[in-house]
Amino acid sequence: MQRKSVTDQSHRMSPWREKLNEVIFGSETKAGRNFDLALIALIFLSALVVMLDSVEDFHNRHAQWLNILEWSFTLLFSLEYLLRLVSVRQPWLYVRGFYGIVDLLAILPSYIGLLFPGAQYTMVVRILRLLRIFRILKLSVYLNEANLLMTALANSRRKIMVFLFTVLMLVVICGALMYVIEGKEAGFTSIPRSMYWAIVTLTTVGYGDIAPITPLGQIAASLIMIMGYGIIAVPTGIYGAELIKTVKQPVIRNDACPDCGSIGHDADADFCKYCGHPLEDG
Amino acid sequence: MQRKSVTDQSHRMSPWREKLNEVIFGSETKAGRNFDLALIALIFLSALVVMLDSVEDFHNRHAQWLNILEWSFTLLFSLEYLLRLVSVRQPWLYVRGFYGIVDLLAILPSYIGLLFPGAQYTMVVRILRLLRIFRILKLSVYLNEANLLMTALANSRRKIMVFLFTVLMLVVICGALMYVIEGKEAGFTSIPRSMYWAIVTLTTVGYGDIAPITPLGQIAASLIMIMGYGIIAVPTGIYGAELIKTVKQPVIRNDACPDCGSIGHDADADFCKYCGHPLEDG
Amino acid sequence: MQRKSVTDQSHRMSPWREKLNEVIFGSETKAGRNFDLALIALIFLSALVVMLDSVEDFHNRHAQWLNILEWSFTLLFSLEYLLRLVSVRQPWLYVRGFYGIVDLLAILPSYIGLLFPGAQYTMVVRILRLLRIFRILKLSVYLNEANLLMTALANSRRKIMVFLFTVLMLVVICGALMYVIEGKEAGFTSIPRSMYWAIVTLTTVGYGDIAPITPLGQIAASLIMIMGYGIIAVPTGIYGAELIKTVKQPVIRNDACPDCGSIGHDADADFCKYCGHPLEDG
Amino acid sequence: MQRKSVTDQSHRMSPWREKLNEVIFGSETKAGRNFDLALIALIFLSALVVMLDSVEDFHNRHAQWLNILEWSFTLLFSLEYLLRLVSVRQPWLYVRGFYGIVDLLAILPSYIGLLFPGAQYTMVVRILRLLRIFRILKLSVYLNEANLLMTALANSRRKIMVFLFTVLMLVVICGALMYVIEGKEAGFTSIPRSMYWAIVTLTTVGYGDIAPITPLGQIAASLIMIMGYGIIAVPTGIYGAELIKTVKQPVIRNDACPDCGSIGHDADADFCKYCGHPLEDG
Repeated sequence: MQRKSVTDQSHRMSPWREKLNEVIFGSETKAGRNFDLALIALIFLSALVVMLDSVEDFHNRHAQWLNILEWSFTLLFSLEYLLRLVSVRQPWLYVRGFYGIVDLLAILPSYIGLLFPGAQYTMVVRILRLLRIFRILKLSVYLNEANLLMTALANSRRKIMVFLFTVLMLVVICGALMYVIEGKEAGFTSIPRSMYWAIVTLTTVGYGDIAPITPLGQIAASLIMIMGYGIIAVPTGIYGAELIKTVKQPVIRNDACPDCGSIGHDADADFCKYCGHPLEDG
Repeated sequence: MQRKSVTDQSHRMSPWREKLNEVIFGSETKAGRNFDLALIALIFLSALVVMLDSVEDFHNRHAQWLNILEWSFTLLFSLEYLLRLVSVRQPWLYVRGFYGIVDLLAILPSYIGLLFPGAQYTMVVRILRLLRIFRILKLSVYLNEANLLMTALANSRRKIMVFLFTVLMLVVICGALMYVIEGKEAGFTSIPRSMYWAIVTLTTVGYGDIAPITPLGQIAASLIMIMGYGIIAVPTGIYGAELIKTVKQPVIRNDACPDCGSIGHDADADFCKYCGHPLEDG
Repeated sequence: MQRKSVTDQSHRMSPWREKLNEVIFGSETKAGRNFDLALIALIFLSALVVMLDSVEDFHNRHAQWLNILEWSFTLLFSLEYLLRLVSVRQPWLYVRGFYGIVDLLAILPSYIGLLFPGAQYTMVVRILRLLRIFRILKLSVYLNEANLLMTALANSRRKIMVFLFTVLMLVVICGALMYVIEGKEAGFTSIPRSMYWAIVTLTTVGYGDIAPITPLGQIAASLIMIMGYGIIAVPTGIYGAELIKTVKQPVIRNDACPDCGSIGHDADADFCKYCGHPLEDG
Repeated sequence: MQRKSVTDQSHRMSPWREKLNEVIFGSETKAGRNFDLALIALIFLSALVVMLDSVEDFHNRHAQWLNILEWSFTLLFSLEYLLRLVSVRQPWLYVRGFYGIVDLLAILPSYIGLLFPGAQYTMVVRILRLLRIFRILKLSVYLNEANLLMTALANSRRKIMVFLFTVLMLVVICGALMYVIEGKEAGFTSIPRSMYWAIVTLTTVGYGDIAPITPLGQIAASLIMIMGYGIIAVPTGIYGAELIKTVKQPVIRNDACPDCGSIGHDADADFCKYCGHPLEDG
């Protein structure tokens, strides 16, 4: 953004758009901060209203009020979206960005709900807008922690995908096996449904809506459960090992070799390990 | 406390209050130790009586005896609370402190139960008074271990809050999604109720009182379960990594060798391990 | 394979078999790559058809089409199996190998299903053929990760077997105990069935189809649950500890500095980090 | 044992008792090895018969045969127990030891079952006798692994007891809370029963036989579940951290300082860190 503004200095924004940008996107000025806090309150209230509207008793008694409130929130958020479009220097970058998509998702369901009743409940995705909290409240310490967790997750994504691929194949095979063994009385009415059971069992959720009743089925299910029990160790091990590696501060000198400029020397190194030149006293 | 008593030496407590303090708060004298042991026995008995009273059969047969016993315990604990107030030098500090609040919570429910029947069962919180056991029985080794676990928990509190915030948003979105997909037949009668289901599923508890029945709902539920399965790795990884860091003794001197400038010497080292020069007295 | 071909150069394969081998087993040529991609698509489609066929509604409406499709896939895979047998230099090595067995398992169930109706559903094991994806798509990075996970698993196999043996004995004893305590009303109709319950409980799956109803049974079940809760820490700890050891790159030269004899130099070090002397070519 | 035999050399056992001891307790001679293998087979068979006897169908059809078999096994094991008593030098040490108790538990239930029908099913504890397998089959590698797991468990026993004490207090308080909130319709008929529910929920087993139905109860249950979800990280973290510490080989020179005899020097140390004397070239 910083780099962009340098090249775009020729077509500066008009003063009122600059001011608007400061209030809506910034959180340094008093006005900007108040706007952000009001926004958070609105998001919370709006999600609460959608939730309450879905409770039948509540809906029947207060249908009209809830409807008015929901449309007020939608119109307010729509207005805000337009203002963001107007006040930002490069609207297209905003629209395509993560927050732009979330902001759009917060208003679309209401309008879609006019055509397909029921769809408006998905507007609870506007709760995602609360992710701004981190930025608004300057919770940079929390941001660092979140980044650490995300880095560990990103570093272990390949192991996790290998793991998920293996689990998926297990689910297909266990599902078909139980379908053949148990049959329809116990609820294993088709392979996809048996696969659903296999996932419920492997993840140790275990609703009990489908459960084996024949001895052979129970033996097979026992083996699957013990397997699932062992398998749960894998993602935990993967993520834990990655997190330990990410958290651990490597004991490394942070000065470069004065001769060859190489870095990454151990804390106890006296000479450059690449060219043999003495390192400076650390 | 020690520092306080020095400045307050002018208004010393009368000898009998001093004696009372020794018995009730101390555990060094024989009388103090006996008092503590009797107190532990009373707490156990009292919690047991409340539990038994809640069993209908038992209540119907022994209502009168149980009532007498409960009020005896309440009066004893009330008397004890008053004695603590009298015997302590600064009553207000005791009342505001952790143990003061727990001691009060142990007697309040009985009196509140006179106004609101049912409230008296919450008096099982007096079980919290057993936390004194650690102090009374001089289980300092266990206290150290507890401190270690608490330190690791405190150090990872930010990561855990980021994690809980993420889970909360997941629960809201999954709940609304399943409400729209499944509808009322399967028990997803409102978004809050669907959120309850989402928590039951993500934590892998899986009661089965609410469970998806449509194919689309079961596919969505499967994805949520696998997500929950992966998510359980996060708190375990966070806490495990923190615990490893907390347990590990760094035991490294943070001064350099005065002769060769090398660092990283063990805490118990008297001489530089690289050049043999004596290290400064640490 | 490479070593084999050297010794077997005398009886070279005829050119068309060589060409066939390149297409079917190789993935370097354009033809070989296309064959592999078509195979993956066929495997996916075939597994999908078997799954859909098991859904009663779908089966009733499209029985004939599904039957034709299934037999087409089976004949195609049979043909492919024969071609593999023909084009490989040492057919017996292929038949005995992992992929040879999987390829056979992918076609056998159809023929067995002619004799024993129902058996054909087990042909979803052909999903295992997707394991070739790793090789075909040159996902070597993923293969490395998979190898890492497998190495950690292999290294901890003894600990895991000790653990499983212990769990098995726990299951037998808990099962018999609950059978004696609970009796038939709660579903504990025999020791094997109680053992099934013990596995469902120890793995924290908890269907709820069998659950203790007497107070004594619930106390025993509580102890078993808490035990299972603690036990889940064991495989996670075993696997996590192993994974940390496996992931950690030792990357340390195992030769000493020829000048000062110091050890522990990084794998990429050319000079001793303690005295600056050149290390020998590693 | 070795040390004992030295002091007891005066009253040597008679040759036939010595021979018997070798067969029953030893596994070095051919006879001893065959005896051990036969014993393992008998234990397996005996446990299997008890299990099958508990299946009603099976019991009704083969009651007589099963009875004869069970008593045969019991008499054989009783005879074996007597022979062990006779052939061992110090019978009382054997009777008091772990294996002595297990051997006795394997025969007692049958006799107790004569007085209290049903008790005989607990004779499956004879499965514990299989623990001898480790010794018999010379599975010393497995024994080492088991020792490692046990050491880690023993080292973390204090942390685990602190954890269990905390969980116990949580269970009492959550149980009482849910009893007050939910009442009898949902199955929370007494505090002990609510505590059973709390354990089922905290351990994420979740049978669903008792589940909250009021909104307030479901909110409270959600909090308890999330707490249980976080709590599961604690034993895993404790045990994992301990296991890593136990497994890890410290990088330490295994030679002593030639001057002061101190040990435990780092692998890269050139001089003794306690007296400054040069260490020998490692």
